[in-house]
Amino acid sequence: MTDYPTTPLNRIKRNAKRAVYDRAAIHGILDAAMICHLAYEIDGQPYCTPTIHWREGEVLYWHGSSASRALRAQGKGLRVCLTVTHLDGLVLARSAFNHSCNFRSAMVFGTAELVSDPAEKRAALLAITDRLLPGRNAELRPMTTQEIKATSVMRMTIEAVSAKVRAANVGDDDEDGAHPVWAGVIPLRLVTGTPEPSPVLPAGMALPAHLAPFAPGRPLDAALQETQAAYENAAD
Amino acid sequence: MTDYPTTPLNRIKRNAKRAVYDRAAIHGILDAAMICHLAYEIDGQPYCTPTIHWREGEVLYWHGSSASRALRAQGKGLRVCLTVTHLDGLVLARSAFNHSCNFRSAMVFGTAELVSDPAEKRAALLAITDRLLPGRNAELRPMTTQEIKATSVMRMTIEAVSAKVRAANVGDDDEDGAHPVWAGVIPLRLVTGTPEPSPVLPAGMALPAHLAPFAPGRPLDAALQETQAAYENAAD
Repeated sequence: MTDYPTTPLNRIKRNAKRAVYDRAAIHGILDAAMICHLAYEIDGQPYCTPTIHWREGEVLYWHGSSASRALRAQGKGLRVCLTVTHLDGLVLARSAFNHSCNFRSAMVFGTAELVSDPAEKRAALLAITDRLLPGRNAELRPMTTQEIKATSVMRMTIEAVSAKVRAANVGDDDEDGAHPVWAGVIPLRLVTGTPEPSPVLPAGMALPAHLAPFAPGRPLDAALQETQAAYENAAD
Repeated sequence: MTDYPTTPLNRIKRNAKRAVYDRAAIHGILDAAMICHLAYEIDGQPYCTPTIHWREGEVLYWHGSSASRALRAQGKGLRVCLTVTHLDGLVLARSAFNHSCNFRSAMVFGTAELVSDPAEKRAALLAITDRLLPGRNAELRPMTTQEIKATSVMRMTIEAVSAKVRAANVGDDDEDGAHPVWAGVIPLRLVTGTPEPSPVLPAGMALPAHLAPFAPGRPLDAALQETQAAYENAAD
């Protein structure tokens, strides 16, 4: 895979050492998160909406209620910016100025479109579960026509991406090295806890094999990278 | 404390049962996160930027390099939307349609301003560390005039907030209750790991007491609620 081209829109000027343009690395940042934040403007007011996203090649998808004013506005071809951020650590320095965070982020620029083709819409809705929880669709009660109708699916083609990664220990000024305060990184991970069964499960219903990637204590990013690799391999 | 008023901008129409207008609850959502996402538009292009935020009463702050084009544009009085989201769990249902996430989110609407008063700017920069890591400033190498000059501090007064919380087990359709697939919640927490010391610490430098809230395995949201409660109590 090639790099994403750099343009005035996505070129990172400050802290250029943190810039990432590698396509596979950026796909990895996007795929390792369950939710993104989506920026768009309606009538002069910007909105920043958290939403579940998924990716197929160079297309990003999200969805919501067909009654959503935001999705109806986006569907008219709004410019959007879809950002995924993983907060990976607190970076504690000897000076306030050199404090930082470890993170992986990708800001994707493009234009929102409503997925209006019924076959593409159905495939996209199946792909959410197939990508994030492979094997689960086959065990679910099938989608109904009414459920598909009640849902809007949006898409954007990746036009440009501005991605940054900081994954390093602290960068103190050389002359601060002897200053007597602890400095370093406190790592952060988004991890799974113990599953809480629905109160209305039939007796003896065990956790299915398809949830193994989400076993207690797993980092969500690693689980999602695993499930989406399984999906990509199955599609090959 | 009172509720935030509901207006056409922040009134939640769908899934109104998830809406939160309580001021203390919304402050809690904002304060429990280290980073937010900020939406703003420049020349017809929306941007969604992850950034560290902090709050003083009804004012939210963020900061960056004085050389940042984004901050320079925001400082001219751009409308912004600052969103904090905590992803608290995967909600797995018997149908694809009823899958969901547990989350706490707050979208704050307002107008960005550059903090130009030197005393307010200095106080705001001290407040990042005082709020998030109380007791640390006293042990740091002090800020320099050049460091303050190299940093821009932005603020917005909270004009309206649209906040939502889902914190419940799965909401399957009644007629799906007997469908034979596991359903329930897989909880998610952003937790601290084992501290990684700077490779250039003086010998025998132990972790300071002020990092106790961030001991390994602590949820970041709980740690930040603790440190900011300590800050608020000290200020009383």
